[in-house]
Amino acid sequence: MIESNKLKFFNDPIYGFIRIPNALVYSLIEEPYFQRLRRISQMGMSYLVYPGAHHTRFHHALGSMHLMEKAVQVLRLKDVEITTEEEDGLLVAILLHDIGHGPFSHAMEHSIVSGIAHEEISLHFMEKLNMKFNGSLTLALEIFKGIYPKKFLNQLVSSQLDMDRLDYLKRDSFYTGVAEGNINSERLITMLNVHNGELVVEEKGIYSVEKFLMARRFMYWQVYLHKTSLVAEQLLSKIFDRVKELMEKENTIQCSEALYYFLNNKISQQNFDDNVLQKFAQLDDVDILSAIKSWQSHPDFVLSKLCRMLIDRKLLEIKLKNKPLNRPKFDERFKTIKKRHNLSDEDTSYFVFKGEIKNRAYDQEKQNINILKPNKKLIDVAKASDHLNLKALSNTVTKYYMCYPKESV
Amino acid sequence: MIESNKLKFFNDPIYGFIRIPNALVYSLIEEPYFQRLRRISQMGMSYLVYPGAHHTRFHHALGSMHLMEKAVQVLRLKDVEITTEEEDGLLVAILLHDIGHGPFSHAMEHSIVSGIAHEEISLHFMEKLNMKFNGSLTLALEIFKGIYPKKFLNQLVSSQLDMDRLDYLKRDSFYTGVAEGNINSERLITMLNVHNGELVVEEKGIYSVEKFLMARRFMYWQVYLHKTSLVAEQLLSKIFDRVKELMEKENTIQCSEALYYFLNNKISQQNFDDNVLQKFAQLDDVDILSAIKSWQSHPDFVLSKLCRMLIDRKLLEIKLKNKPLNRPKFDERFKTIKKRHNLSDEDTSYFVFKGEIKNRAYDQEKQNINILKPNKKLIDVAKASDHLNLKALSNTVTKYYMCYPKESV
Amino acid sequence: MIESNKLKFFNDPIYGFIRIPNALVYSLIEEPYFQRLRRISQMGMSYLVYPGAHHTRFHHALGSMHLMEKAVQVLRLKDVEITTEEEDGLLVAILLHDIGHGPFSHAMEHSIVSGIAHEEISLHFMEKLNMKFNGSLTLALEIFKGIYPKKFLNQLVSSQLDMDRLDYLKRDSFYTGVAEGNINSERLITMLNVHNGELVVEEKGIYSVEKFLMARRFMYWQVYLHKTSLVAEQLLSKIFDRVKELMEKENTIQCSEALYYFLNNKISQQNFDDNVLQKFAQLDDVDILSAIKSWQSHPDFVLSKLCRMLIDRKLLEIKLKNKPLNRPKFDERFKTIKKRHNLSDEDTSYFVFKGEIKNRAYDQEKQNINILKPNKKLIDVAKASDHLNLKALSNTVTKYYMCYPKESV
Amino acid sequence: MIESNKLKFFNDPIYGFIRIPNALVYSLIEEPYFQRLRRISQMGMSYLVYPGAHHTRFHHALGSMHLMEKAVQVLRLKDVEITTEEEDGLLVAILLHDIGHGPFSHAMEHSIVSGIAHEEISLHFMEKLNMKFNGSLTLALEIFKGIYPKKFLNQLVSSQLDMDRLDYLKRDSFYTGVAEGNINSERLITMLNVHNGELVVEEKGIYSVEKFLMARRFMYWQVYLHKTSLVAEQLLSKIFDRVKELMEKENTIQCSEALYYFLNNKISQQNFDDNVLQKFAQLDDVDILSAIKSWQSHPDFVLSKLCRMLIDRKLLEIKLKNKPLNRPKFDERFKTIKKRHNLSDEDTSYFVFKGEIKNRAYDQEKQNINILKPNKKLIDVAKASDHLNLKALSNTVTKYYMCYPKESV
Repeated sequence: MIESNKLKFFNDPIYGFIRIPNALVYSLIEEPYFQRLRRISQMGMSYLVYPGAHHTRFHHALGSMHLMEKAVQVLRLKDVEITTEEEDGLLVAILLHDIGHGPFSHAMEHSIVSGIAHEEISLHFMEKLNMKFNGSLTLALEIFKGIYPKKFLNQLVSSQLDMDRLDYLKRDSFYTGVAEGNINSERLITMLNVHNGELVVEEKGIYSVEKFLMARRFMYWQVYLHKTSLVAEQLLSKIFDRVKELMEKENTIQCSEALYYFLNNKISQQNFDDNVLQKFAQLDDVDILSAIKSWQSHPDFVLSKLCRMLIDRKLLEIKLKNKPLNRPKFDERFKTIKKRHNLSDEDTSYFVFKGEIKNRAYDQEKQNINILKPNKKLIDVAKASDHLNLKALSNTVTKYYMCYPKESV
Repeated sequence: MIESNKLKFFNDPIYGFIRIPNALVYSLIEEPYFQRLRRISQMGMSYLVYPGAHHTRFHHALGSMHLMEKAVQVLRLKDVEITTEEEDGLLVAILLHDIGHGPFSHAMEHSIVSGIAHEEISLHFMEKLNMKFNGSLTLALEIFKGIYPKKFLNQLVSSQLDMDRLDYLKRDSFYTGVAEGNINSERLITMLNVHNGELVVEEKGIYSVEKFLMARRFMYWQVYLHKTSLVAEQLLSKIFDRVKELMEKENTIQCSEALYYFLNNKISQQNFDDNVLQKFAQLDDVDILSAIKSWQSHPDFVLSKLCRMLIDRKLLEIKLKNKPLNRPKFDERFKTIKKRHNLSDEDTSYFVFKGEIKNRAYDQEKQNINILKPNKKLIDVAKASDHLNLKALSNTVTKYYMCYPKESV
Repeated sequence: MIESNKLKFFNDPIYGFIRIPNALVYSLIEEPYFQRLRRISQMGMSYLVYPGAHHTRFHHALGSMHLMEKAVQVLRLKDVEITTEEEDGLLVAILLHDIGHGPFSHAMEHSIVSGIAHEEISLHFMEKLNMKFNGSLTLALEIFKGIYPKKFLNQLVSSQLDMDRLDYLKRDSFYTGVAEGNINSERLITMLNVHNGELVVEEKGIYSVEKFLMARRFMYWQVYLHKTSLVAEQLLSKIFDRVKELMEKENTIQCSEALYYFLNNKISQQNFDDNVLQKFAQLDDVDILSAIKSWQSHPDFVLSKLCRMLIDRKLLEIKLKNKPLNRPKFDERFKTIKKRHNLSDEDTSYFVFKGEIKNRAYDQEKQNINILKPNKKLIDVAKASDHLNLKALSNTVTKYYMCYPKESV
Repeated sequence: MIESNKLKFFNDPIYGFIRIPNALVYSLIEEPYFQRLRRISQMGMSYLVYPGAHHTRFHHALGSMHLMEKAVQVLRLKDVEITTEEEDGLLVAILLHDIGHGPFSHAMEHSIVSGIAHEEISLHFMEKLNMKFNGSLTLALEIFKGIYPKKFLNQLVSSQLDMDRLDYLKRDSFYTGVAEGNINSERLITMLNVHNGELVVEEKGIYSVEKFLMARRFMYWQVYLHKTSLVAEQLLSKIFDRVKELMEKENTIQCSEALYYFLNNKISQQNFDDNVLQKFAQLDDVDILSAIKSWQSHPDFVLSKLCRMLIDRKLLEIKLKNKPLNRPKFDERFKTIKKRHNLSDEDTSYFVFKGEIKNRAYDQEKQNINILKPNKKLIDVAKASDHLNLKALSNTVTKYYMCYPKESV
């Protein structure tokens, strides 16, 4: 961080400099809760495919805040009223929108807690911080929850064209080196406006929105759901399934205290209290990686093998298809492995398994993107484009995968 | 990694794609020894200043190899003879040049082992791999050690203008977002030639070499020796000093098995055998960070405090000056802290201490950079430039620092 | 141009360096015919919208050649046989593919000659050069004409995924600053292969091809057919219509000798002989701009007014719609201007006029892009994608425009 | 130009978007005087070496204005008072600072007018525009002339660290593809401050200033004074010397009316009146290039030969040395050419000639760069750095050149 008298900046390879806009934001960044995001990678296991993808939630949060400042500036120039308090609220809300992410972001979401989304945990953190900062986050909380009267403020934080997405697509594209995902955030922001209290895109921005949705779809299938990342994240998840299974029998397992807590207690929405929050705030990628490293020499064959696979990047084979996979082939592979290592059916299923992944680039039903026509009517972007069948982007695409060990394993 | 039939590539945000040139390199990358570099950050604690600086030794090794391929191509076009075997040797040598780095690269170098440089440990790894690969690394080893007859091959791997530096300056500049360090590696490579068996730079490249040395100096003072990184790395080092001190008394400390081994045994050049190598190969940044995280709640005041400072980024204050620092001020600060926390002198010195850092941008005595004049004479770059006193870059610059807790701590 | 012993390079902001691969290419670049391309802008009047768009056909030709080298390298690594002679032929063919462009590229195509495409004029130039270079361009000519037996060589030069397009989309995106058109040429090239003698894209490249087609469509509607460029190019065309009309009456008009020749003689495919070629080779953007500058003070009201509009960038208003435009509004505007300046109908139609523009991002009938499925079957890209209705990209989109002077003119 | 309701933007490949800050600036950009800058290249003949270097004064003026906005923003955050009127004055002053440049910028400066710098002609244009805009440019004029009381405002427009230089170094580096000149304008601006009414750089910015001066020096010797550009600009100048010589005899020469005016009348500071200004405003690169193109077939051997050399890029050979060149060699070449073409001494000197070029990267005497020390004392940057002998950058470097035709000419 570069301190230049009153000005505080972060260097950012993408935007050049990110300025810390005010003292409250500065103090929030200083909080251990927020500093923890330095140890949570943005893209989970993707670095096993894209060696540059080691950027963090910390950096993404700053980047989103930077874009939010730009958006406020643009909207004000278009005579949209945003008070100073509302601006501060927006900046805080976007800064903290991901503070509830656990280790490895999405990859571990269901292994640590169950039935509670990271957004809800973010809310817990924000409420805790609001107490510490004597209510300074109240407006930010209202915006984040979507209960503040000006709806477009919430849409800047959380919608299909929010500052979160505009930053993460650009940032993930940058760090992976996958140029196809490099969206023009600045141009998209320039095209934003507010109509009847809703965030809209001006008609001339329609090609940019299409390009954005295409880039998003590209990143999903080429990067986020890359088959090698997929198999790595499956391994990660299987490791924790196995550990929990083992713990039911033996009750001891080597790992950090905080991680042990979550392995030993089933935490859900119902029992996520202040005490849990404190434990959760201790967790980051380091807890997971150090546990997996140590479990490489655990006596259980399944656990140690899975852990070594992940650490040494000797991953399972994966077949990924557009159609459901051939059942007999799967059964055959299952049998081979079961026999080779003399495993039970249950144990075999840690190495030979199948599943589905789904994605849709644009969801017409949830926080859709509206285009403002010159006649001041709003139209859903999927219907606004007469050149390209954007409706196709609204379809959910399902792919089917099957994982199994390589010949030699 | 993208597999396209026979072609294997890594995505790289800097060079676009890095191609894996042959099967041996592919196999070496697959080795757990090399995969370990994915968990060793290139820039140690610098991410506390530059949030983008999370790139790894793994990525840097691939990048250096990529530049080496370019260099071979350029030199051959200039009728420098490099056989296929020599090319393979060069690629392997540069790929593995940093494989002996321990956790957090330079920052921890003296806390884990003593009196053995990372290059020597790289050599241990390479020899081990050479056995496994039936002698395929022999030529690479000869180049790396500098005993191969063609001297310029070694200079491409290890000199003041080697592919290592050309990659790390560019890469560190890219990931930190500090554009001033962005050297033009491609142009520099284009200017290389060989004269009487030595690597030289053609005269027209003199401005580029100057720019390169200036960028290097810039990166040292602005980034590598940034005062905040400096204080973080000092804290890291102090933490391990303290742990070793504690272990002399109590003999137990919570950390990974591999780390415990190095804390409990004094490893130096003399006793670095095959068994030690296996232990060393288990170590990476995760071991260090997880240990520090757990030591935050260690009963020892000094240890737990230092660990919390690092994890929460509540670092010590630091004064950095061009002249030796004022003694009485230091003593005063020392006394204040000693009194505030009721500490012994020795314990106080973990929080209030001073030191020096040195750097010189260009070392005329070691592997100097030679300019090839049109009259075929060689001249040291520091003497070749008549515009700028490059000799100044050869002077060692010393700075003096003092660290101490902030008011409130 | 940087000469480094035997190596000759051009600096290129996009690819870093472009190496001149051999002596023949070097000599061709030195030819005045080719140097003329330095004075022909790539994007016609687009610089009136995008102030950075002053790059030339010269630079684009070099860039396309650079990509061709990469493509040859990739295909050879995939065991596609390309002889040294064929490689040289490819490089020459792509280098010269646009040498027949006249001033302002497409914008003026029909004002200078009629019924002869720039590709045919390129052929004339290449044949002329082939004589001068004693037949060294024969193979290049065969590839360019599509009569060489290996069909994929021609497809690398001229198809819907040729090196021409891969360079110009990237280059135009770069110089205009419209990031949305920034395709990943390198990745696309990596995905190329040859199957049964045809250029194909491997299946894993399907998202990249889609992204490429989307980028192309984006560039068409947002940049190449930007309404302000459109009106400027219409003005350019109208200026030459008027000049020709005037010359039928007065027979003198101030301009360069070469331009005069083409205004005074109707040149088409039939009479485009060696003598015409020499005249054509004298023409470039300078002839057009200097003529328009001098015609600003021509006594003819229509001509001088049109010229001043273009030079001072006081362009006509333009309405651009997806549906045919309202006839009465047009008529009303026509009458107003006719009356205001007391003009004949014909003269008025220089200032108030309408027209259509068409584009389709992908043409299934012409040199289509084939995807190679793992089962070795080829499938058209428009059918290969099951996620997105790429067929929509194959539809021709028509837009309708109307131009007329601003209120005050 | 992209119009988004009230917001008007230019696309810029360097800064993304350049916003037009207000209506006055918008109107000034619309003026034909300013539009003329679209036809004046920023880097003269450099495109003969760097094929990407076709950017214009128009684009540079917009870029400088963009940086000025950033500088105002930074200084205000540091509590430097800049009123809205002063900000507008700054923006107009920097926008128009180069409006007085003639064709090919510096290369032609002495061939068109004599004894009047382009800054003075800019002043003429600004005064003319001030009348048209009813005095709205008065404050801008005061800042530009340096008579406005707040001295730092003038320094932002015209000093050794002004927004002009920060843009042109970056822009020229970008378009030539010479990465070494790519300065970090944004960081430099962040380091600016005002002390006792003077523009200063904060001490932590010292490495950035050094890097900036080094980049500037690099660009001078590697790009601006590249030997091939140098010879091209010498040819340009010789062409106009010859034309003037011929006109004394024959009095007719084919060229545009405006150019003829300046060739036929000796214009200097004394007689540069309103009428001259109108003529000057007609001149741009097109006039020069079209004249040279037509003079290729002029009956005078010297003139036609020089013109063909430039158009076909068959330039003279050039030797460039750090020491004065060998006299006998020059005489010999002179004699050879004289004899080969049977020329007079005077005519021969158009083809065989010598000269000197000088540059210094930093001028301590003129508008020097001051570093603000923490003790609030100012110190010249050349003295502030104790690491590098920056004084060396203050020395004027002289190089000596000799030009002559190639063997075959």
